[in-house]
Amino acid sequence: MKSSVDVALRVRYAETDQMGHAYYSNYLVWFEVARTNYCRQKGLVYADLEKDDGTFLPVIESHCSYRRPLRYDDRFVVQTTLAELRSRALTFEYKIVSPDEKVLFAEGFTRHVFADRDGRPKSLAREYRQLLSN
Amino acid sequence: MKSSVDVALRVRYAETDQMGHAYYSNYLVWFEVARTNYCRQKGLVYADLEKDDGTFLPVIESHCSYRRPLRYDDRFVVQTTLAELRSRALTFEYKIVSPDEKVLFAEGFTRHVFADRDGRPKSLAREYRQLLSN
Amino acid sequence: MKSSVDVALRVRYAETDQMGHAYYSNYLVWFEVARTNYCRQKGLVYADLEKDDGTFLPVIESHCSYRRPLRYDDRFVVQTTLAELRSRALTFEYKIVSPDEKVLFAEGFTRHVFADRDGRPKSLAREYRQLLSN
Amino acid sequence: MKSSVDVALRVRYAETDQMGHAYYSNYLVWFEVARTNYCRQKGLVYADLEKDDGTFLPVIESHCSYRRPLRYDDRFVVQTTLAELRSRALTFEYKIVSPDEKVLFAEGFTRHVFADRDGRPKSLAREYRQLLSN
Repeated sequence: MKSSVDVALRVRYAETDQMGHAYYSNYLVWFEVARTNYCRQKGLVYADLEKDDGTFLPVIESHCSYRRPLRYDDRFVVQTTLAELRSRALTFEYKIVSPDEKVLFAEGFTRHVFADRDGRPKSLAREYRQLLSN
Repeated sequence: MKSSVDVALRVRYAETDQMGHAYYSNYLVWFEVARTNYCRQKGLVYADLEKDDGTFLPVIESHCSYRRPLRYDDRFVVQTTLAELRSRALTFEYKIVSPDEKVLFAEGFTRHVFADRDGRPKSLAREYRQLLSN
Repeated sequence: MKSSVDVALRVRYAETDQMGHAYYSNYLVWFEVARTNYCRQKGLVYADLEKDDGTFLPVIESHCSYRRPLRYDDRFVVQTTLAELRSRALTFEYKIVSPDEKVLFAEGFTRHVFADRDGRPKSLAREYRQLLSN
Repeated sequence: MKSSVDVALRVRYAETDQMGHAYYSNYLVWFEVARTNYCRQKGLVYADLEKDDGTFLPVIESHCSYRRPLRYDDRFVVQTTLAELRSRALTFEYKIVSPDEKVLFAEGFTRHVFADRDGRPKSLAREYRQLLSN
């Protein structure tokens, strides 16, 4: 459950602010791109999970520690691990590092529940649980 | 059909970029806030139009001319007019001005069609047309 | 140091996602709008702090707990308090509630340091500290 | 001056709206990613142009026609051409197509001027003009 999946991104101009840094809410967007990629690498296409299985993963908690600023056009890697997988909830952990992994820019986590189309809690099907925890 | 409805906004830090300007895509977001406000002032709550009537207004064209930059914390007013209202499409025009209306920061338009939940074209109900064109 | 400052906002269409919720990173944007407003109510215009005093408040930590989803066009209030003010850092706490304060949608905090234009740590001038802690 | 440069992207969850479409302002963000990539492929790193040469490219006009909606997780390609390059202004044109180029999702353009750090018009250095028009 602890193998990390990486995705490489680059800071968009849209994501900068007048301080010259990547604005702090964008890290949560990158976390989302990273966990979608995590799921895909594990064989679970999150778009299909919503569409075919009617299972949604609303976020119930987010946290990020910003160590060093990222700037326009910087390349970075988001390393994602599945920190916890329970029947009704899961937690992803993220590290944002330089491509050579020498600099830690930020780290954080997001906690999610499984919900149906109407927001009611549900359990994740066993087959999907097995995919995610491989 | 030409009366203008105003809404006052302020540039968020999130909306700035490293040039110190409001990033150019945010103007389209402000246009959206402005047309929602236009509809509300005319007695049409756009959220209800989607939810109760199953009518959506996807954008088919957007245009913006940027005259002078807006900066963090600047107050501005979006003046919205309904430039065209047909049975299956409508066009909003926008001017972004300083609160005293002496400076024109930007102007543009958005064109929309009426569509049902599945994206198929439909006509706007007569009662809503009358509200919008008042 | 515990008096709360409120700001009322409305969920923009741009801020929704296909789940029909306000997307989770936008809460951090609203926190920013709320702390700018907090400072302004206390007599400190954050834009001037950057421009005139060369003092910046980069975020070093953010946290948010999402209790109930906010949806398009929902009105909500962000209640902001200054939880901690030290010579080189400060912490804001936020609650996002319904206008009648009966529903808690989310709560969180952001931690900031004081930095100069080049990102080096500095102390906040005494006069500004007094304003913020009133 | 008409050779096209492609960049492949994927719709982020953050970019969807409650209609289930990619929200319309994001197309302008993708245009920005595409023109940054265009410049890089031509040998001009836009980040360096700002930092080293003090040359900025503020947008003075944007236009987009939305042909078909893009949805969460859709892959798409932005094809960018330099439509016009003058001493003080340039125009990029964009087509957003499916990876197999069979579907046209959107097309548009952005017009820019060259400006110095203070927003005053300037000319683009000859060496950069040659790079861009190759």
